[in-house]
Amino acid sequence: MQALTLHEDPRSGNCYKIKLTAAMLGVDLETRQYDILKGETRSDAFLAQVNANGRIPVLQIGEGANARHLPESNAACWYIADGSRLIPEDRFARASMLRWMFFEQYNHEPNIATLRFWMRFVGETNLSAEQTAMIKPKRVAGHDALRVMEDHLQTHDWFAGDQASLADIALYAYTHVADEGGFGLSDYPHVSAWLARFAALPDFAPMV
Amino acid sequence: MQALTLHEDPRSGNCYKIKLTAAMLGVDLETRQYDILKGETRSDAFLAQVNANGRIPVLQIGEGANARHLPESNAACWYIADGSRLIPEDRFARASMLRWMFFEQYNHEPNIATLRFWMRFVGETNLSAEQTAMIKPKRVAGHDALRVMEDHLQTHDWFAGDQASLADIALYAYTHVADEGGFGLSDYPHVSAWLARFAALPDFAPMV
Repeated sequence: MQALTLHEDPRSGNCYKIKLTAAMLGVDLETRQYDILKGETRSDAFLAQVNANGRIPVLQIGEGANARHLPESNAACWYIADGSRLIPEDRFARASMLRWMFFEQYNHEPNIATLRFWMRFVGETNLSAEQTAMIKPKRVAGHDALRVMEDHLQTHDWFAGDQASLADIALYAYTHVADEGGFGLSDYPHVSAWLARFAALPDFAPMV
Repeated sequence: MQALTLHEDPRSGNCYKIKLTAAMLGVDLETRQYDILKGETRSDAFLAQVNANGRIPVLQIGEGANARHLPESNAACWYIADGSRLIPEDRFARASMLRWMFFEQYNHEPNIATLRFWMRFVGETNLSAEQTAMIKPKRVAGHDALRVMEDHLQTHDWFAGDQASLADIALYAYTHVADEGGFGLSDYPHVSAWLARFAALPDFAPMV
């Protein structure tokens, strides 16, 4: 594989997913840090060279003029894990893995990660009126997402197939810090057990 | 492949994606219709048997007691297209396809599809105060998404690889009806040209 560089903010769970995928597979990954609160991913250079969307993470593949860039955390995880044990070979299990990864980006991250970002990094008193109005609906939708996970984990050890996959990595990233957004997990015992099971895997790497 | 049944509301672009994928590959797909405005996907039977998330589309694989269910439109498209020309073989192109599919669910659908749903099917006068407050930010974010697409299409015919893939299907579904949500495409000539290019493909099937 060509040299891999992750453009990241270490506080972001979306960036952590990619580092966790690389760690679990023993893949080398350089990192370059940006402070999203200081707008460092909105600079002209970043927009022109890394991601016109102004967002991190971005996985850079190769160096210099031949470098290619891959935004979207879950797509970057797929690139690193393609052909590995973290992507099930069975057709249904593979599609189910993607099902949970899309669920994570649609139902989980916009609620649980956004409230964590607002509460822990922006600060509730610094939110706009529009953001403040979104706290309650995001709180409800975040708990709905946790409930769907809890229901699945009542009868499954992992989200897709019979071992940990990218779906578990994607959902672990923001679920294990959900309390930082005010989401207590005491009502979700199977989610809590799954978090512990995942963190006990041999090649697990914590968020730092 | 086992018998496939799509649980759908025909007005939904997310459902259309799956029918379009099947049509382009000549795969048989039965459909079962629900009216989401009448809450037909929130019934106890639907929640227990089809999707605990209460959402469509859901792709059902097999029949009766052995049936398995796959929510999330883009995961259902992947299941149907796995191993076909609609998923690039090249590692970077395949991950790039997923990049645009995650972009679609995170940046495009929650803005462009939601405003279309509110404007065309719910009616602006029937929106809650909370929904009304979200029109403007969703309008801005939807145009941001169209701008990212326009920038990409200035130098590419398709979103990933050198032919149409699931990324084009996913993004076509709600972009071609963006005007129903108040998103005119006159500022996005490359998006408009791509829509026409896509709809001219031999196995294209229109939304009905």
